[in-house]
Amino acid sequence: MDKIRNFQKILGRKQIKAYIIPTSDYHNSEYVSSYFKGRAFLTGFTGSAGTLIITQDKAYLWTDGRYHIQAAKQIENRPIVLMKQGNPGVPTITEFLSNYLIEGDTLAFDGKVLSANMVLELIKNLPNIKIKADEDILQEVWSDRPNLPFSFIYKLETFFTGKSFQEKINLIREEMKQKNATVHILTSLEDQAWLYNLRANDIEHTPVFLAYTIITYEDCYLFLDQRKLDKMLESYLKENKIILNTYFYFYEFIKNLNNQNILVDYNIINYSTYLNIISENTLMNFSNPSLLMKAIKNETEIKNIISAHIKDGVAFTKFMYYLKNNIQTSSSMSEISVSEYLQKQRENQEGFVDVSFNTICAYKEHAAMMHYSATPATNATLKPEDLLLIDSGGHYLDGTTDITRTLALGSLTSTQKLHFTTVLKSVIALSEAVFLKGTRGMNLDILARGPIWKLLMDYKCGTGHGVGYLLSVHEAPNGFRWKTVPERNDSAILVPGMITTNEPGIYLENKYGIRIENELLCVEKDSNEFGEFLGFETITYAPIDLDAIEKKLLTSDEKKWLNQYHEKVFETLEPYLTNEEKEWLKEYTKAI
Amino acid sequence: MDKIRNFQKILGRKQIKAYIIPTSDYHNSEYVSSYFKGRAFLTGFTGSAGTLIITQDKAYLWTDGRYHIQAAKQIENRPIVLMKQGNPGVPTITEFLSNYLIEGDTLAFDGKVLSANMVLELIKNLPNIKIKADEDILQEVWSDRPNLPFSFIYKLETFFTGKSFQEKINLIREEMKQKNATVHILTSLEDQAWLYNLRANDIEHTPVFLAYTIITYEDCYLFLDQRKLDKMLESYLKENKIILNTYFYFYEFIKNLNNQNILVDYNIINYSTYLNIISENTLMNFSNPSLLMKAIKNETEIKNIISAHIKDGVAFTKFMYYLKNNIQTSSSMSEISVSEYLQKQRENQEGFVDVSFNTICAYKEHAAMMHYSATPATNATLKPEDLLLIDSGGHYLDGTTDITRTLALGSLTSTQKLHFTTVLKSVIALSEAVFLKGTRGMNLDILARGPIWKLLMDYKCGTGHGVGYLLSVHEAPNGFRWKTVPERNDSAILVPGMITTNEPGIYLENKYGIRIENELLCVEKDSNEFGEFLGFETITYAPIDLDAIEKKLLTSDEKKWLNQYHEKVFETLEPYLTNEEKEWLKEYTKAI
Repeated sequence: MDKIRNFQKILGRKQIKAYIIPTSDYHNSEYVSSYFKGRAFLTGFTGSAGTLIITQDKAYLWTDGRYHIQAAKQIENRPIVLMKQGNPGVPTITEFLSNYLIEGDTLAFDGKVLSANMVLELIKNLPNIKIKADEDILQEVWSDRPNLPFSFIYKLETFFTGKSFQEKINLIREEMKQKNATVHILTSLEDQAWLYNLRANDIEHTPVFLAYTIITYEDCYLFLDQRKLDKMLESYLKENKIILNTYFYFYEFIKNLNNQNILVDYNIINYSTYLNIISENTLMNFSNPSLLMKAIKNETEIKNIISAHIKDGVAFTKFMYYLKNNIQTSSSMSEISVSEYLQKQRENQEGFVDVSFNTICAYKEHAAMMHYSATPATNATLKPEDLLLIDSGGHYLDGTTDITRTLALGSLTSTQKLHFTTVLKSVIALSEAVFLKGTRGMNLDILARGPIWKLLMDYKCGTGHGVGYLLSVHEAPNGFRWKTVPERNDSAILVPGMITTNEPGIYLENKYGIRIENELLCVEKDSNEFGEFLGFETITYAPIDLDAIEKKLLTSDEKKWLNQYHEKVFETLEPYLTNEEKEWLKEYTKAI
Repeated sequence: MDKIRNFQKILGRKQIKAYIIPTSDYHNSEYVSSYFKGRAFLTGFTGSAGTLIITQDKAYLWTDGRYHIQAAKQIENRPIVLMKQGNPGVPTITEFLSNYLIEGDTLAFDGKVLSANMVLELIKNLPNIKIKADEDILQEVWSDRPNLPFSFIYKLETFFTGKSFQEKINLIREEMKQKNATVHILTSLEDQAWLYNLRANDIEHTPVFLAYTIITYEDCYLFLDQRKLDKMLESYLKENKIILNTYFYFYEFIKNLNNQNILVDYNIINYSTYLNIISENTLMNFSNPSLLMKAIKNETEIKNIISAHIKDGVAFTKFMYYLKNNIQTSSSMSEISVSEYLQKQRENQEGFVDVSFNTICAYKEHAAMMHYSATPATNATLKPEDLLLIDSGGHYLDGTTDITRTLALGSLTSTQKLHFTTVLKSVIALSEAVFLKGTRGMNLDILARGPIWKLLMDYKCGTGHGVGYLLSVHEAPNGFRWKTVPERNDSAILVPGMITTNEPGIYLENKYGIRIENELLCVEKDSNEFGEFLGFETITYAPIDLDAIEKKLLTSDEKKWLNQYHEKVFETLEPYLTNEEKEWLKEYTKAI
């Protein structure tokens, strides 16, 4: 690849032994705007997670289990070594670098796209290596690099968000006071959008805007491209005494902080931010107070989110009706065409804003790639046979959804039915969990993973992730996972109001993939002498394909769960369907 | 209490604001010899775990969920505040001390009975408090304090242990070399007994001897009371080039270590040991290499342990036969008398050494105290009604056992049957787990706890603990627990060869307690493209009381497990039983 060779030549000239290109922006975002897609530009690998390390003669790409198959395909025939993160024997990035680099070598990167924590860890583990944190070499090799993103900002009213900016900033200031912090630097884009009750479109399918925020007891400074604001917003910000500055002025501003106790989250702020704070201040490294506030949805948000899920269920059910009724006769349905049909159904719903991520519509063996995205080159035609996996979601003004269903397009083999029914058993077991306060996703993961492990199979990803409110579809700090993954902050104690996906699966390379995904709202169950018990309420409403279930593999309790779930789905969606759809849904939600 | 008042007077005189009395000896043992039972002497609370803090006008006793009920009863009417560890709102010892003590106050203790880690944590959290680590005030108030324990040491042959001393010390030295440690200080009594293949009787039901060990690449120094050795052992130690010294000379010896890299486990070595090592050395804080070597049983040990479990199963079955056949007619059976009968059955088995802990034989509401121990004052007479819980075990030359059965002595209520059957469901779910390498007990605990949480109940202890080989019946670092308990090192990754108990339960204060406990051997299941799968083999062989089971609450898979288990129990034990016992066991292990 010329691009990588070019890059390596510059490394040689600058006497840099290794260069790190993560998948991140200046705000440690999971999904990034085109300006920051340097790793994809250099490698061709388009997944949402991956870190590229370029040395003077090689290139190494780390990515996690969701992308092992896809990355291998996309970098095929390129001079890039795939490092399958999490697999036995595969070194971590730090392990790799401490083996590769020798005393006096230089390691470089752009300090604005790596978190303070990551760089501090590297420095600790590479004591004799020179660190150069101000090298944006991408800029030199990427001649047609896109601009920083630009989109207009809009406001969400309190009947959507449940809390005003003033209420939210007061809560943050309370926590600052408790911790004795005089200044709080907030750089997470989702947290800022949440705080101001503002949204935009700077990142595809993540309705945020690039900004930095500094909060003191008296003032609130917002750094952003002010052309994104209209007059109304300007006066909203003014009313709330928010002081505006330009986006990049942030780095100058923080140099002037002096003699302050500064609350920052080293996992979120970038290393350049950390470097610009002078040592006369005391840095207090804690989670951003807004992280938990945002994750624990308030009553208004929950009411709205449920209404978004009903719309989403209506859209999905109309789509499923269309698919099931036409698959026998139509020869023109493809992964892309049916994705578009599904998107249309969502667009027809009131308050629809955007899809919440690129739809995964994966037929047969495509679904073995957990995060497959159909392109014109790969687009498969659907036939009345085998399995189709659709993982999709919507952003609505009243919330964000994420749902997966796997549909039988024809008759299935008994193994396919066994696998589908096992995934369903996994979904049910986690849905029905009852647990004491203090429980983490790590304690519960086995409920979903256990039935699949019993088949001596595994899915190489977490069982579920938090979901934002018209924000990122992946939201910390709640999640279901069996091993701690340091770079993911998703093992928080579960608290009522948190929403987490429940999405176990079975993936067989070159054969098929099965995933069922519902969202779970954490709710209170009971409080007695044994403690405070919590549980889940499933807030996704869409049929689970009865054509794919092997009834006799379900216990009577599991059947009871499924029948009650389907009854709820029917009752909830029925008012929004045509008579034909209603009749069809009755059949597809009938008790087994 | 005069004793505590006396203690407080001395604190006043010495200007000590708070004094810590843990339940430990100089070796951080869980169970301790009488010399170290100062907390029980001062408070009357006889449980195996608890920490007493005495201030100049009060006394506070921390103990964990296993002992909340018992401790409350035993300290009733004494001027001691019970701190129910783990309950919401109850401060930890560190939290308590940092609230209670003010700048300049003195906190004292005997540095030989607190671990280095615990004291270093205290120092970190109490920056302005004076620490006095050489005050053994117990000595002043405890006029009839017992002597340090004395028991004769004996040797276990390699056909019991599977590995010789030389093989074991070579493995430890390999790990020292890998870590670049030149000296290893080993103070854990179990680890030393394991290393030397020696046992004794210094601690009731824990067959160890007080000793310290220092290992270098060339030499091995053993510090102990040499009167415990006979001529044979002296020559065994000499053959193996083990250099003998007196017990307390250890503290002088370590002062002379200089310019060494010393491998120690701060969780195990006491604070005085830490203080005696001069700063010219480098301390390397790691788990003792012997910890994992001892926990992962070798093939010989596993073969032997299974044979010990068969003997134990025979003893328990003979006991159960006796109990079930006489409860209707005998009026003289009591908690103590049947415990003695059970112990007789164990004593009749070849290679029996001792019971592995004080038998818990608890009738009706006594069983709600998880670790009840009958005394002549509490001894209940058994009637043909309600539930009897027996938790007991044996030390044999071929291994240690720990088994609990709860028996119906008459007809049960439907609630009792529901609770018994739920506990059985819990046992089965954990027994049947299949899991990928890397899994910890924390991931699996919910399998056992889940069914009980679904009844909105909980047991306030872990689900299981590791078991030693003719060593402590509680052995680190494997265990099943849902929350990390800092002072317990029991959340290690599960490895084939580890043995862990599986003992969920339901405890209703003033009513009854139900526990079923089997031991699980971790075994390999399969290895494929998804990874290395592990599982468990149940190695406890004794009937689970069919009289207490509500059949219709079990799924067909659960019935299948129970029937297969009972079939195995019958086949395994049948050769060692009389014809009458055999016939009876056939009935009590019949398929349901």
